[in-house]
Amino acid sequence: MTDWGLLDPGGADAVGTDDDAVLAAMVEVERALLRAWGSELAEALDAQADALDAAALDRAALVAGVSRDAVPVVALVPSLRAQLDAAGLASDRLHLGATSQDVLDTALVLVARDALRATRASLVEAGERLAELADAERQGLRIARSVARHAETSTIGVLAAGWLDGVSSSIEAIAALGFPVQFGGAVGTGSAADAASGRPGAVEAVRAELAARLGLGDPHRSWHAERTPVLAIAAASASVVGALGRIAGDATFLSREELGEVRLAGGGGSSAMPHKRNPVDAVAVTAAAVEAPGLLQVVASAMISGDERSSGRWHAEWVPLRRLVRLARSASVAAARLIRGLEFDGDRAGRILAGSGPAGERPDRRVLAASSDRIVDRAVARFSAVSEESPRP
Amino acid sequence: MTDWGLLDPGGADAVGTDDDAVLAAMVEVERALLRAWGSELAEALDAQADALDAAALDRAALVAGVSRDAVPVVALVPSLRAQLDAAGLASDRLHLGATSQDVLDTALVLVARDALRATRASLVEAGERLAELADAERQGLRIARSVARHAETSTIGVLAAGWLDGVSSSIEAIAALGFPVQFGGAVGTGSAADAASGRPGAVEAVRAELAARLGLGDPHRSWHAERTPVLAIAAASASVVGALGRIAGDATFLSREELGEVRLAGGGGSSAMPHKRNPVDAVAVTAAAVEAPGLLQVVASAMISGDERSSGRWHAEWVPLRRLVRLARSASVAAARLIRGLEFDGDRAGRILAGSGPAGERPDRRVLAASSDRIVDRAVARFSAVSEESPRP
Amino acid sequence: MTDWGLLDPGGADAVGTDDDAVLAAMVEVERALLRAWGSELAEALDAQADALDAAALDRAALVAGVSRDAVPVVALVPSLRAQLDAAGLASDRLHLGATSQDVLDTALVLVARDALRATRASLVEAGERLAELADAERQGLRIARSVARHAETSTIGVLAAGWLDGVSSSIEAIAALGFPVQFGGAVGTGSAADAASGRPGAVEAVRAELAARLGLGDPHRSWHAERTPVLAIAAASASVVGALGRIAGDATFLSREELGEVRLAGGGGSSAMPHKRNPVDAVAVTAAAVEAPGLLQVVASAMISGDERSSGRWHAEWVPLRRLVRLARSASVAAARLIRGLEFDGDRAGRILAGSGPAGERPDRRVLAASSDRIVDRAVARFSAVSEESPRP
Amino acid sequence: MTDWGLLDPGGADAVGTDDDAVLAAMVEVERALLRAWGSELAEALDAQADALDAAALDRAALVAGVSRDAVPVVALVPSLRAQLDAAGLASDRLHLGATSQDVLDTALVLVARDALRATRASLVEAGERLAELADAERQGLRIARSVARHAETSTIGVLAAGWLDGVSSSIEAIAALGFPVQFGGAVGTGSAADAASGRPGAVEAVRAELAARLGLGDPHRSWHAERTPVLAIAAASASVVGALGRIAGDATFLSREELGEVRLAGGGGSSAMPHKRNPVDAVAVTAAAVEAPGLLQVVASAMISGDERSSGRWHAEWVPLRRLVRLARSASVAAARLIRGLEFDGDRAGRILAGSGPAGERPDRRVLAASSDRIVDRAVARFSAVSEESPRP
Repeated sequence: MTDWGLLDPGGADAVGTDDDAVLAAMVEVERALLRAWGSELAEALDAQADALDAAALDRAALVAGVSRDAVPVVALVPSLRAQLDAAGLASDRLHLGATSQDVLDTALVLVARDALRATRASLVEAGERLAELADAERQGLRIARSVARHAETSTIGVLAAGWLDGVSSSIEAIAALGFPVQFGGAVGTGSAADAASGRPGAVEAVRAELAARLGLGDPHRSWHAERTPVLAIAAASASVVGALGRIAGDATFLSREELGEVRLAGGGGSSAMPHKRNPVDAVAVTAAAVEAPGLLQVVASAMISGDERSSGRWHAEWVPLRRLVRLARSASVAAARLIRGLEFDGDRAGRILAGSGPAGERPDRRVLAASSDRIVDRAVARFSAVSEESPRP
Repeated sequence: MTDWGLLDPGGADAVGTDDDAVLAAMVEVERALLRAWGSELAEALDAQADALDAAALDRAALVAGVSRDAVPVVALVPSLRAQLDAAGLASDRLHLGATSQDVLDTALVLVARDALRATRASLVEAGERLAELADAERQGLRIARSVARHAETSTIGVLAAGWLDGVSSSIEAIAALGFPVQFGGAVGTGSAADAASGRPGAVEAVRAELAARLGLGDPHRSWHAERTPVLAIAAASASVVGALGRIAGDATFLSREELGEVRLAGGGGSSAMPHKRNPVDAVAVTAAAVEAPGLLQVVASAMISGDERSSGRWHAEWVPLRRLVRLARSASVAAARLIRGLEFDGDRAGRILAGSGPAGERPDRRVLAASSDRIVDRAVARFSAVSEESPRP
Repeated sequence: MTDWGLLDPGGADAVGTDDDAVLAAMVEVERALLRAWGSELAEALDAQADALDAAALDRAALVAGVSRDAVPVVALVPSLRAQLDAAGLASDRLHLGATSQDVLDTALVLVARDALRATRASLVEAGERLAELADAERQGLRIARSVARHAETSTIGVLAAGWLDGVSSSIEAIAALGFPVQFGGAVGTGSAADAASGRPGAVEAVRAELAARLGLGDPHRSWHAERTPVLAIAAASASVVGALGRIAGDATFLSREELGEVRLAGGGGSSAMPHKRNPVDAVAVTAAAVEAPGLLQVVASAMISGDERSSGRWHAEWVPLRRLVRLARSASVAAARLIRGLEFDGDRAGRILAGSGPAGERPDRRVLAASSDRIVDRAVARFSAVSEESPRP
Repeated sequence: MTDWGLLDPGGADAVGTDDDAVLAAMVEVERALLRAWGSELAEALDAQADALDAAALDRAALVAGVSRDAVPVVALVPSLRAQLDAAGLASDRLHLGATSQDVLDTALVLVARDALRATRASLVEAGERLAELADAERQGLRIARSVARHAETSTIGVLAAGWLDGVSSSIEAIAALGFPVQFGGAVGTGSAADAASGRPGAVEAVRAELAARLGLGDPHRSWHAERTPVLAIAAASASVVGALGRIAGDATFLSREELGEVRLAGGGGSSAMPHKRNPVDAVAVTAAAVEAPGLLQVVASAMISGDERSSGRWHAEWVPLRRLVRLARSASVAAARLIRGLEFDGDRAGRILAGSGPAGERPDRRVLAASSDRIVDRAVARFSAVSEESPRP
C-alpha cells in the first residue's frame, strides 16, 4: 500500500517527512545509539554505526513486520543486525538497552525537528518579504473590515504587519520546543542499559550522549507514557499552520475579482476552464489549516496512554504527528511562495476605500498615519528579533 | 514523497485505498464517462474507454500536476488524451462536460464504496463468529462491570451479544449510505454537457448512465459545495471504527494477565522482550478508533465549502476521507482476525465471579439465565437480518 | 456554577436544551417508567407519575449529587421518592429496574428528539423561502465562482437551489434517526426488571411501553456501551449545522460591500462603530458550524466505552451531545431568520457578471436557462417531498 | 437558557469560570481601562471605575444583547454608562478607544489566567503528594506493563514518578503562557485611542497600563485576528487535562478489583447498586480528558479568522476556550483529591509480580533498585524546581 502524493497538493513541498525519511531517522537513531554505547563501554563501535544502511533495507519486509508486530522496529532490528553480520561485525551492541518506542519516538522527533527547522527557514523568508511589504505600504490606505463589513480606515502596512505578527508568533512557537530524545528501555527504567553497562546510571549517560549526537534535547527521563512533549510539537505545528491559514484566507479573499487589493502570481490550471488561474498556494495552505486541527486533536486524545507503554494510543499518534509536521513544512513553503508573488494594489484599495461611506471617514488620517508607522515598525522589529536569534531548533 | 506503510499497522489490511487505487478509480470514472457519452451521443466510444490505462500513467508527472494545480485531475486529462492519441483514437469526448471535482469526488466515492463493501464482508465474518460465541456461552457466568467496578452478574453470551450489536449497527450504518456519483461540470449547472450534446437535459442522462455504469447512486444533482454526502460516508466509517474500537478495548482489557476472561491468538513480537506476545490486532483497531474521530472532524469542518466550488476546504477532505475508509477497512479486517482467534475462558470468569462479593450475588441466577437467552437470541436474529439482506453497498 | 447565556449568541434560539429541560426530561422518563410498570404489574401508578414534579426539585442538591456521584440521577431518585412520600404515595415502584444511565440516556435522547424536531420545523421554514427565491430567480444571471475565482455564468436560482439541497439533506438526516429509548438496568441484562415483575421478558415489555409513552424508538436491546445511536444523533446534528454553515458563509460573502449580490435584513450593533450593521444571524450560524465538528469528534471518541457501562467516556458525551443538538436548534432558527430577511440583488449580480470577462462568456445563455430551470425544479420538488413526509422525528 | 451544572461532574470544582465570572472580568477590564485613561489623560476617573458594578447589571438584558449583536459587549457598555449616569458621574471616558473584542478577549484571558493559576495550585498539591508517594515507594516492586501485557519489573516509585513528571510538565505548560491583554480599537490600529488622547502613541501607553493593572502581559500589538495566543492557552489547558487524564486512567485500572495495586478513597453512589463505590474523581478527570481535545480542535480551527476582526470564527472560540480552562481547573482539583486519597498496596503488587512469570524475572533487582532511586530523585527534584519558581501565572 503506497501513497505517492496523488492527494496531497503540498506533498512536493514536504521534503523529509515521508516513510523513507522516517526509516532513515530510525537507522540514524540506532547508529547514534551505537556510538553512544561506544563511549559508555569504551568500545570501538563506529564501524558498526557506519555499516548500517537505511537505503539497503527491504521495505516490504519492514511493512510485513509493521503488520505483524504493530510497530516497525521489531523487524528493523534483525535486518540491521544482518547488515552487521554481513559486514563481519559484531551485532550484540545494536539496539542495546532500547525498546521499540525509544527508536520510533526519537526518530519521529528527529523528523519533526528537521521539518520544523525547514519550516522556520520558510517562515523567515516569508517574514522578510512581509516586512518589506509592510514597510513599503505603511501609508497605503485601505478599508479595514470587521464582521464581514467595512469598519474603518487602516493601511496596507498594518495588514501586512498583522500577517507578519503571525509569522513571528510561529517562529517563536517552534523556538519554544525542546525536541527531546527518548531512551528508557522496555518499561522506562533504563535497567537494561544499566545492566549492560554494569554501571548504575549508564542509561543517563547513554541518553545524554544520544541526545548530543542527534542534536536533540536531553529530558533526563523517559516519556513513553507522559506525552506532553508530543502534544507540544503537535500544537506548535498546528499553530504555524493556523497562522499561515489566516494569511492565506485573507490573501484569497483580497485577491478575488471584486476586491483586487491583492494580486497573486502564477496560479494553477483548471480541467474545465482554460481561462482560469487558481490561487493554488493559498489553496494548499488553507487545506492544511482546515486539516491540522483534527490531527492535533488525535495527538491530544492519545495522551491517555495507559500502562508503562500504550496499547493503541501511542500507535494512533504516528500518522497524525507526522502529518502535522508535514503540513507545517508544506504550508510554510507554499506560504513563502504565495507571499513572494503577492503584490498589493494600492489604487484598487484606494478606490474601494473611497466608496465605503461613513466607515471610510474614520479615523482622522493624520492620526492613522502615525498609528500605522508605529505598528509597522514594531512588527518589523519583533520579526527581526525572533528571526535573528541563533537559528533554532 | 512516498509513504509505503512504515507507520500504519493496518496498512496491509487496507487493500484498495492507496494512491494507485484512487488513480485507477479516476481512470475508471473517465472510462465510464466515455461510455455514458457513447450512449448519449450514439457514438462508438468503447474503444476509447478500453484504451485508457491507469497503470501506464506517469505518476511523477501526476504528482507534479497536483503540486502545480492543487488537484490531480488537471494533469491527468492530457495524459489520458495522449493515450488515446497514441492509439489513434479521437480524444475530444474525454472528460466531456466534466470538471476536476466531478472526477475526483466520484473516484473517492468509488474507493469508499469498495472499501466499505469489503468492510461489510469483514464485519459479517466477525459477526458470524460472535454469534457462535454468544450462542455457545449464553449461560457462561461472569461479573459485569460498570464505572470500572464489579457491578453484578451477567453472562459471556451477553457480552458477546453486545459486541455483536455493534457489528450489526456497523453493517446498518454502511447500508444506509447512498454513494452518489458527482457530475455537474465547472459550476454545477451541467451546461457544458448540455451544450456538448445539443440537448437540454443531457447532463442528467449522462449522470444517470455514469452512476449506473459505476454502480453508484444517482443524486439527481451536483453536490460540489453541498457536502452532506461526504460527511455521511465519513460518519459511517467513524461509526464502524468506533464500534470495533469498543470491542478491541474490551478484548484487550479482558485478556490481561490479571483478568484472563478472554484469550487472544497469535500476537506480535517485542524488540526488547522476547517473551512477550502483544495483542497486535487489538492495537491496530484501537489505534484506528483513536484516530478516526479527528478525521471525521476535518470532514465536518470542510462543509463550509464556499462558492460553487471550494478554495481549500474541498482539498482538505481528500486525505482524511480516504484515511477514514482505509481505517474502516483495516480495522474491520483486524477485528475479524481478532475475533476469529478469540476464546473465552469460562473457568477464569467463574473464579473472578466467585470472588466478587455482594456484586456477584446479584441477580437471581435463574432470572439471569432467561435474560441472557433472550438477549443472545435477539442479537443473533438482528445480525442475521442485517447480514442476510442483499449485500450492500 | 451557572451559565446563563453570556457567551452564546444562539442561546435564545435554543429553547428546550438547557439544564431545566434535561431535568424535566429525566423526570418525564421516571414518570413514563412508572406508568409502564403500571401496565406490566397491573397496578395503579398514575398518581405516582402525576406527583413527580421537576420544577419543585432542589437544584443545588442535584448539583451536589452530580459532584459526589459523577452522575445526576443518583441524587434525583431519592428526591423524587421524597415527593411521593410527601404525597402519601408508595415510592417502591419508582426507578424500578432502571440504572442511572437508563434515565440520563433516555432523557438526552428526548431532549435531542425535541430539539431536532424543532430544528426540522425551522429547516422547513427556511426551505420554503429558499424554494420561493429559487423559483423567482431561476433566470437571474450571475457569475459562479470556483477556487475563489470567477468560473462561468450560472443563475441566482441555481445558487438558491444549491442551498435548498442542503436544507433537504438536513431534513433527511434528521428523518433517518431512530431516537431509541434506553432501558437495561445495572449491566444491561434487564434482570432487575424481570425479577421485579416475576416474569421473564418483563424488561422488554416495560421497554416497549416506555418507548411508546415517550414517543421514542424501541431498540429491543440495551446500548449502554454500544454508542452508535449517540454518534448517529451527533452526526446528524453536525450535518445540519454544517449544511447551514455553508449557506451562512455564502450569504456573508455575497452580502459584503464589494459583492452586494445578497442583502441581509437587520443586523447587530457595534460598540465602537455606530454606523455598522453586522450580519449577526450569519455569525451565529457560522460560529455553530466552526464549533460543531469538534463536538462530534468528542462523541465519536467516547465510543470506546469500556465494560458494561463506562468509566468516564459516557460522562464525556453529555455536554458535547447536548451542545450539538443545541447548536442544530439555534443555527436552524438563525438560518431561517437569515433567509427570511435575505434578498438577492439581480442588478448587482448582473453588473458583476458583465465585468467578468471570459469567465462570464460561458456557457451559452440559452443552454444555461434550460439547465437552471431543471435544477430549480428538481431541488424544489425534492424539498417538497422531504418536507411533506409525515413530520419526523 | 440557563445551565446550572446538571451535566458537569466537575462543575463544582471549576470556580471562577461561569458567566458571572466572565461578566465580572469584562467589568474589571472596563474599570482598569478607565483607570488607565485616568493616567493617560491626567483626569480623575477612579470614581467612575469604582462605580461600575457587575453584580447590579441586568443579566436578561445582556443575554438579549448577545442575541441581537452576537457579542455581549455592545449591550454591556450602555448598561455601565447608565450606572455612571445614575451616580452622577461623567461616562464619556468609558470604553474609550476600545472595541467589543478588546473587552471580551481580555476578559477571557483574565478568566483563563485565574483558572490556570488555580489549576497550578492544585497541580502543586497533587505533585507534593505524588513526590511523597514516589519517595516512600521507591523500592516497592511491581510488574510494569506495555501493550497491555506484563513486561518487566519496575517499582511503584517509578510509576508515581512518571505521574509526577506529567504534573511537572503541566506546571511548565502553564508557566510558559503570556496571558496578553487585548487593546486595539475597531480594527486594531488604536487610532481611536490616539485620537481621544490627542497624542500619537497613546494607545500603547494605555495598553501597557491596562496590562499592568490587570496583571496581564503587554503584547505591544493587537491580536484580534492573529489568534496564536488563544491557541497557546487552549493547548496548555489541553496538555494539563491530558497529563491528568493519563494518571486517572492508570489509577482507575490499577484500582480495579482484579488489580488492586491502588486503592482510592471515597467514591460515588449508584442508583441501582447500593454496594458500589465508584471512582468519581477519576471519572471526572477522564471525562475531561476525553472532551478537551475536541475543544482544542475548535480553537485551532478558529484561527482562520478573516478580516481585521472575524465573522463567526472568533465567536466560535468563546465557549470551547472557556470550557477548556474550566476543565483544566476542575480536572486539577479532582486529580488532587484523587491523589490525596490514593494509596498503593505493595502487597498486592508483590503478589501480582510473583505470578507474572518470565516478565517478572527481568531485570536484575539490584540494578532496578538503583534505577528506581535515580528516577524518583530526578522526578522529585524536577517537581521541586518547577513548583518553587515564583508562582506563575
